[in-house]
This record gives sequence, C-alpha cells and structure tokens, in this order.
Amino acid sequence: MKPPIHSASSLSKLGQRATEPPISWLMKMAIDRPQLISLAAGFTDSDSLPVDEARALMNEMLGSANSGRAALQYGSTSGDADLIRLTIERLLALEGAKAASQRAYDPQRVVITHGSQQFLYLISEALCDPGDIVLVEDPTYFVFLGILQIHGVRTRGVPVTPDGMDLTALEKVLESLRRRGELPKLKLLYLVSYFQNPSGVTTALEKKEAALKLLRRYERDAGHPIYLLEDAAYRELRFSGPEIPSALSLPNASSRVIYTGTYSKPFATGVRVGFGLLPETLLRVVYRIKGNHDFGTSNLLQRLLAMAMATGRYEKHLPLLRRRYASKAAAMIEALKQHFPSSVQWLAPEGGMYIWAQLPKAIQTGPKSKFFRRVFARDVFYVPGEFCYAEDPARSKPRHEMRLSFGSASESNIREGIARMGAVLKELT
Amino acid sequence: MKPPIHSASSLSKLGQRATEPPISWLMKMAIDRPQLISLAAGFTDSDSLPVDEARALMNEMLGSANSGRAALQYGSTSGDADLIRLTIERLLALEGAKAASQRAYDPQRVVITHGSQQFLYLISEALCDPGDIVLVEDPTYFVFLGILQIHGVRTRGVPVTPDGMDLTALEKVLESLRRRGELPKLKLLYLVSYFQNPSGVTTALEKKEAALKLLRRYERDAGHPIYLLEDAAYRELRFSGPEIPSALSLPNASSRVIYTGTYSKPFATGVRVGFGLLPETLLRVVYRIKGNHDFGTSNLLQRLLAMAMATGRYEKHLPLLRRRYASKAAAMIEALKQHFPSSVQWLAPEGGMYIWAQLPKAIQTGPKSKFFRRVFARDVFYVPGEFCYAEDPARSKPRHEMRLSFGSASESNIREGIARMGAVLKELT
Repeated sequence: MKPPIHSASSLSKLGQRATEPPISWLMKMAIDRPQLISLAAGFTDSDSLPVDEARALMNEMLGSANSGRAALQYGSTSGDADLIRLTIERLLALEGAKAASQRAYDPQRVVITHGSQQFLYLISEALCDPGDIVLVEDPTYFVFLGILQIHGVRTRGVPVTPDGMDLTALEKVLESLRRRGELPKLKLLYLVSYFQNPSGVTTALEKKEAALKLLRRYERDAGHPIYLLEDAAYRELRFSGPEIPSALSLPNASSRVIYTGTYSKPFATGVRVGFGLLPETLLRVVYRIKGNHDFGTSNLLQRLLAMAMATGRYEKHLPLLRRRYASKAAAMIEALKQHFPSSVQWLAPEGGMYIWAQLPKAIQTGPKSKFFRRVFARDVFYVPGEFCYAEDPARSKPRHEMRLSFGSASESNIREGIARMGAVLKELT
Repeated sequence: MKPPIHSASSLSKLGQRATEPPISWLMKMAIDRPQLISLAAGFTDSDSLPVDEARALMNEMLGSANSGRAALQYGSTSGDADLIRLTIERLLALEGAKAASQRAYDPQRVVITHGSQQFLYLISEALCDPGDIVLVEDPTYFVFLGILQIHGVRTRGVPVTPDGMDLTALEKVLESLRRRGELPKLKLLYLVSYFQNPSGVTTALEKKEAALKLLRRYERDAGHPIYLLEDAAYRELRFSGPEIPSALSLPNASSRVIYTGTYSKPFATGVRVGFGLLPETLLRVVYRIKGNHDFGTSNLLQRLLAMAMATGRYEKHLPLLRRRYASKAAAMIEALKQHFPSSVQWLAPEGGMYIWAQLPKAIQTGPKSKFFRRVFARDVFYVPGEFCYAEDPARSKPRHEMRLSFGSASESNIREGIARMGAVLKELT
C-alpha cells in the first residue's frame, strides 16, 4: 500500500515555505468590524485620492482613438518610454545638484513594475538563492521580509538610529560574516531610506555613503558585488525638513546602487505602478524575469501616470497630499503627547505615514499580548512591532514596540484611537 | 590574489538561468522597422480596442467620490469581490449545462492576477522545484516555456492532433516516466485548450476527460496529485463552431483542475487582468506568494472590468471583436490558399489569433534559416515554430513550422505578407 495522496505533498520548496503573511492576518482582523479604528493599515488617505484628476486624464487619454488605443494595447516589458523619461526627470529634480554621476540616471537603467513591491520581488529572485544572506534594518518593511522568507533567504538585522542605520553595528555584522566565511552568501543591504516603514526614520546621505563604502570593503571577501538596495517608496510624501539626495547621487552608484520608487503612494494606491533603476547586468536579468511574470506592466496605468506627470497634474496634487499627511501626523503627535505616559518613546517623522512607538519593555505588543487584546477589545488596531523584525539568530526580537499609521484613519479617529490606547497603557503601567 | 569581481557572479541560480526570451528578440526585430508586416506579434487587433467604452466606464467610475476612491485605493490580495462574482457568472454561462460540479465554480477558489501570465508564474512557483517535470503540448505557448526554463523545470512534449493532445502519446510519456521512476517529479500537464497558441487547435472535451483520468491513474506512482492546468486565454475569441466546456465541468475537477482565463485578450491587452481557479490547498499558497509579488492586482483595472461586465458593455463588445478576427482569419486562409504551395499544411482555427503552418521538412524556418532571412528581407515576420517546442531529450524539435498571427496586422497586410512568403516558398521548392 502506498501512502494516501495529499495535495500539499506536490508543493515546491518555495510553496512549502509560503506561510501566511502578517499582512493577510491584519486585513482579516479588520474585515467585518467596520467600527474598528485602524492605525495598522498601510492604506493611504482616501479623501485626497485624485478622483477628479484621474477622470480628466482618462477623458483626455481615451478621447482620441490614437492615444486611447496606445493605452489599451500591450506595451514593452521594460515600460512606457514617456513614463521612463518623466521618471528620470522627476528623480533628477528631487536629487538637485548632488546628482553627481549622470550614468546612474540613464533612462536605459529603468524598469517599470506593477508597484515597487513587484520590483522588490524581481530583484530578490535575480540575486538570492536559499541560504543566501540579506542585511535589513531593525525594524524593516515586513512584506520585504516575506519575499526573503519564501525564497529561503537568511537575514541579519542592523539597528536603526534617528538618522538611519547604526554604522558601527553594520560593520560588526559584516565582520562577523567575514569571520564565519559567510560573506560569499551576502547579496545586498536593504534600506528604506525616507520616513521608513515602519520607524519613520530618514537616512542621512552621509550614512548612505558610509554604508556603500563599507559594503565595498567587504566585496573582496564576498567575491562578488554587495549591492545597496534603496527603497524610496515614501520619498514624495515629505512634509517637513530639506530634501535628501538618494544613494544614486554617490560615487560608484551606477554599479552598486539599486533604487526603487513608486507612484502608488504619491498618486493612487489603486494604480499600482512602481519603478527600479539598477546596474546593467542586473537589469537584463530583471527584464527577462519580468518577461515571464507579465511581459510588462499594464499600459493603461503607465499612460495614465505619464500623462499625469506630463500635464503637471501629478506635481500639483502633491502639496495637497503632503498637507493632509502633515496635519494627520500632527494630530497623532498631539494625541501621543496628551494620552501616552512619558515612558513611551517615539519620534516625529518628516514625512510618510508611520510613527514607531517603543513601550516600556515590560509591556509586550504581540498579537497574543494583553496590551493587544485590550486595545483590540476597544476597537483599536496597530501593527505589532515584532512583525517588522527579521529572523536573526544573533539577537532576539524586541516585543514591546508598535507601528502606528496615520495614513488612512481620519484625524478624529487618530485622536480617539490614541486616547483609547493611552487608557490601556495607563491600566498596564 | 582573489579573482576580479564580476556582477554576474552574484546572480541567483534562477537569475543565471534567465536567458533572453524569444519574445524580446521578436520585439527587438520589429523596432525601427515600421514598414514590417508582422505576422509574429501576439498583439491584438487595434481598431477594435474599446476606447469609447473604456472612456464611458471611467467617467462613470470616477464620476462619484465613493466609487472613484474605491477604484484608486488598495484592494485585497485575492481580488475585487464583484469581479470575482462576475467572473464566475460569466464562466458558468460559457460552460452551459455541463457545469457538473458546483464546487469547482466556487468564487472562493478564484484569484485575480495581473494578466493570466502572472497566474501561470504563480502556480509554477507554487508547484515546481528545479528538476521537476511538466508535460506540455508539442507545440505550446512559448512564454510558459520561459517560466519553466528559469525555474529549472524539465519538460516533456506531447504531440497535438487536430482535436487536441494525442492521448496515446500522453500515455507513452507517462509510462516512460513511470518506468524510470520519475513520476514523483511530475507536477502537471499544461493544456492551452481553446484555439491554442500557437497551433490554433481546440481540445475536445472527451480528450480533457481522458487526459484527466490518465493523470489520475499515475498518481499512485507519483505519490501526489498530478494537476491538469487548463489555459483558456483565447476562449472568448471563438468565431465559429459550438462552445466546448472546460475541464472544470468534469468529475473531480475541483481537486485536480487548475483553470486560468484572461480579460486582456477579449477586452483590452493594455488592461492586464486575468484570473485563476484552483484547488484550495494550492489557492492558499498562491495567495501567499501573490501577497509577496504585489499584494493584489491594480484595483483601478479590476473595477474597470467589473463595471464593463456589470453594465453589459463587455458582453456587447465581444461580437464586434469576433467578427474582426473571423474576417482576418478568412483573409489569411484565402491568401494561404492562393499563395502557398499545396505541400504546406495548415488548419483553419475556430477562434483566437493564430494559424500554424507546416512547410515541407526540407525548408527550415528558424531565425538563421534561408527562409526566415528571405522573408525578413521582404519585410515580413513570423514566429519560428521551434520557439514553441519544449526542450525534450526524447525527441528532436521540428524545424519546419511557423506561427502566423492574424491578430494585429490589417487584412491587406495579412494578404500582402502571405503573398510575399508564398513567393519565397516558391523560390525554395
């Protein structure tokens, strides 16, 4: 007798590694509970979505047979040429005078993707085998951790300080990998550089430069390039402080920096269009893999964004968005000051959608913790901080932190949510 | 001294396997040669793209803040609930009375993807490790071969006859795998069942049923399910003959049949939305992987299609499309009869966009062949048939065939292109 036939047994190794991502759990928790105040969601502000702008653009685009047909037909795998050109122009405008190496901003280095998430997936596929190592920030963007996890990639965390990654800690991790002969497995350092998801921290340019130099120093022992992957998803959502150039502006960027950005956050999350810039050898490989994923992102979405940018509507919409987030951030900060005990630490971000709160170590925040359950019982919801930490055998995960989003909740709900959380905190301290 | 650092050396195994896909070569060949008559492209008919319909739908959708915001915000990973419901309704209408197992058509079994290509990628990731085996038709859809190739999957080809796969050949392949102890590596049989890309062949329902039974018989030796993956990408483009139910209508379908369809071809290729139905254990895994790819297909595209279907505009547009393709197919067939020598064999399809031509064996059609070069010199372009054959150690690839598309070229260009090819054929025979 042969054993019974189970469906699970024909899964690939990747399929077997694919565990329920925290994001699904978060979404499920929120369903059927409309009264819930969600400070967890990565959803953007709904009131400021560019509905009228999108309608006007669609009418223009679909108003003539020629441009309409172009939008409704297949495009190329790399992406729409106009959108690529406008992406580079926009990027150069953000970089300012610091854009040292023109080569790094060559339109030929761009691929347009179905959200920057798809780009993160493609580059991980291109570089990482099971057992390989990727360095991430402690804490970091948890859906990127999901990509690494299903590919069997090992992770090491590098603590974040208020101006970016702790460089001494980065050097220590690199040194420990060198000593253990594991550098040949190290593929890249992942950096969410602007108003980081989840910590809100922005990385100083000097830190990007120092990190890039450090990685370079260890390449000889690695035997191959160690890339810096800069994820600038929130860059356009700055509401205070001066603009900071990306790592693309640094020397040697064109051969070692991989940069990704998105139009989903600054324009509309329902329009999933992101982009990546990357060294040529990798670009070719990413094109080929994307050719197998979907042979090109929806042309309709790409043409919509190209037109939004070309007509100035994109640029005109941004200040509105920034004012909204500035105001929501201020509401959350005001409420935190009013309702949270002084033992809770948090940092005011200069943009983005997140504030990271560190509770006293005795108060755990995980999905089974007393704090989480009491907060949830009062219809308030956040992302437990431990979801944002990589699996790293060299340290245990902090369990007393949380990500608070001011992206989608209304200002009054933000205030109410923080007040209810504050009440629970007072019960527990 | 350490060896010099090459970028290529940090690529993953998948990255290293990612070779230039034929589709990129095809696209490159066509660029900068606007006078080219392309009978190669998989592009759809441009004149019948629903420009006015899309504009009207966008105005409706983006005409109110509520529905506009819903379209411009993130959705769920599995897809828009309305689109899923309408997809099932549409599918049941196509299946007719044969829809035996209601369970196979449960909306809970659906995932919406960024084109059906993404679904093919996801299911391959979920099931296949390097060294695994997938059975495909001889010939088959070459971009699916690309997916298998970058995942290191081995392939075995099963010849296609005018009503679908040769079942005797299928049994022989299964038997040879059994004898060699390779059945535990066999994961699925891939079938492009309607007006197949590239052969134009439609698979009879009896053949689907027999294939499913055959696979079932070998599962005991495999030790796990062997799935039938039915790709119905062209199903809605039928212009003659009676509708044929899918394999979902067969007994045991809900546990063994994976079905995928698309709205890109019957509505607009610039709107990349496809879908898959699959057994629950696989569905969970595919959701999780898709959560890492993009956590959900663009909501704007999904809402557009849901509205096109709900308002009846989708259904109303189809007859126009079918008349266009019927007329283009007729033009190509007429030209083939007039200009090709009788030694060339081809089959009139009942739908889709392709005719498969078998030249006399002495005339090779590959990209370096005399025939290809002479045809290309006269500004005509086709897909060499060998691109559509899997790597299979058990047989050599036929080299004397070609895929002719009547999808995007105008009728006069179709006639002219075939006439020029015919002239070259006469020179060579």
